[in-house]
Amino acid sequence: MEALFLENNSISLKELETPKSNGEALLKVEVAGICDTDLQLRSGYMGFRGIPGHEFVATVLESPNPTLIGQRVVGEINAACGHCPSCLKGLERHCPTRSVLGILSRPGAHAQFTRLPPENLHIIPDNVSNEEAVFTEPLAAACEILEQIHIQPEHKVAIIGDGKLGLLISQVLALTGCHLHVIGHHESKLAILKNRGIETETVPASEESKLPPAWADVVVECTGHPSGFAAARRLLKPRGSFVLKTTVKDRFQLDLADLVVNEIKLIGSRCGPFGAALRLLQRRLVDVSSLISESHALNDGVKAYTRAGQKGVLKVLLNF
Amino acid sequence: MEALFLENNSISLKELETPKSNGEALLKVEVAGICDTDLQLRSGYMGFRGIPGHEFVATVLESPNPTLIGQRVVGEINAACGHCPSCLKGLERHCPTRSVLGILSRPGAHAQFTRLPPENLHIIPDNVSNEEAVFTEPLAAACEILEQIHIQPEHKVAIIGDGKLGLLISQVLALTGCHLHVIGHHESKLAILKNRGIETETVPASEESKLPPAWADVVVECTGHPSGFAAARRLLKPRGSFVLKTTVKDRFQLDLADLVVNEIKLIGSRCGPFGAALRLLQRRLVDVSSLISESHALNDGVKAYTRAGQKGVLKVLLNF
Repeated sequence: MEALFLENNSISLKELETPKSNGEALLKVEVAGICDTDLQLRSGYMGFRGIPGHEFVATVLESPNPTLIGQRVVGEINAACGHCPSCLKGLERHCPTRSVLGILSRPGAHAQFTRLPPENLHIIPDNVSNEEAVFTEPLAAACEILEQIHIQPEHKVAIIGDGKLGLLISQVLALTGCHLHVIGHHESKLAILKNRGIETETVPASEESKLPPAWADVVVECTGHPSGFAAARRLLKPRGSFVLKTTVKDRFQLDLADLVVNEIKLIGSRCGPFGAALRLLQRRLVDVSSLISESHALNDGVKAYTRAGQKGVLKVLLNF
Repeated sequence: MEALFLENNSISLKELETPKSNGEALLKVEVAGICDTDLQLRSGYMGFRGIPGHEFVATVLESPNPTLIGQRVVGEINAACGHCPSCLKGLERHCPTRSVLGILSRPGAHAQFTRLPPENLHIIPDNVSNEEAVFTEPLAAACEILEQIHIQPEHKVAIIGDGKLGLLISQVLALTGCHLHVIGHHESKLAILKNRGIETETVPASEESKLPPAWADVVVECTGHPSGFAAARRLLKPRGSFVLKTTVKDRFQLDLADLVVNEIKLIGSRCGPFGAALRLLQRRLVDVSSLISESHALNDGVKAYTRAGQKGVLKVLLNF
């Protein structure tokens, strides 16, 4: 099969052996997305070598659960053991021996075929297209915030970052009815939210230190750069919740006394519930189509990765 | 009046003018405690210059609320405006224009007389001695953890640090019935907890990297040194709550990706509810007397500060 392959900080197109199902579900990939985490992996994050890709829509070719065969599915990316204390508490996404599709010890979905345990798969509702469903994984990561903290309808919430994840988080948190203010660098990206009645502000990096202090009960930092931390911290009230979505390789200089004196809650947030994400898509409550910048064939995948890393580009899809 | 005075990283005994009540309650200090924060202030934390001291028991000499006059009281250390959004939400301890007794813009209690707004004062129950009541402020800071997070009876909780605050937090969290494991460097200090049926472990710094990984649902870091962070992080499960009590001047190198991938909640925790602390003392549920190492007269205050900073010494009191 054709697949993209990551090694030595570089992506290339390879002809690899088609995987066997090996007791899992064998999947024919229909469409896949390139995520900022894929670009981070290319820069050395997690030390991953292999087929990247964890955002996909596929058709099930083989499965131990025959009702899945032929179905159009998305798949949760953490493959857990099912037996450990984390798994038994329903925290499979934190199973210590998990593999993660295209990120940790498991070949990903930027290939013609991939596989996952059948319990990871979710059938896509009929009224959700492939190009919409491919956003299920990052949309679930946005929903994860609501699983971790209780955002109340009268809370003031600031989102820093207008990348793909920021635009999805903004749309999900807007559904709570909260006061929402989204801050980013790109007027064109923020326009997607403005069109949906969400309050946005284009603030160049040089002006971030002038943002109003202590405005928000909750801030979500999803800029993808540690530099977003200071602006988000500035906006947050004492006793506020600081949701951190940015994963980067670098360590960060934190003022611990500030966290203690102001009793800040700093909450790391990663993967989320696929079921909720699919329900939001099915109910047409989130617009993901506006986030697609372009599509490329798999054998143009190297170019697609280059484009995905360029300024102003939102979601780049791979077609099969 | 006689008072201790902090300037240029040094404590000295001074003869100062007795404060006027100025619309607040005028207090005759009976006993005061020296806290690690006082030692941090001496090292430059908060840039405070003036009379230090925020742990005290006093008799009310003058008060706009006459029912307080003659009463034996303890006092909340944050003097708030009472009008701002924080105050109106009951978060007076986070009022942005607050002064803080002996810490920020307000002379403290290491003096014969001090003053505080009458609404900050709590009358001490008859069965609580001065030497017990002087622990109300740090005991309230221990209770603050229960105001911020829900510790469940079956939670596994690790406390790192066997200083004064660690010993108080351990006793307060033990009341929840949770699985509790307290880790420190000093067998003699941990013995105070062991005598109360609390599980303890003496672990030298060189052995902290061998602590069992991912054991705890909640960790409380109260070592007073950023070095305690790694051991506490190691003990914590994914999705766990990391309560941070240590306030130090230094910045700290944090691995943000670890927080995100493991969805850790990092919770800064400072001052707490005096009412709960006094109820615990009144019900004899916490032993504070064992924490007193020695008492000194106020005019031996410089020596008392030196002793308080020495290894193995727990609470040093000032008598008036």
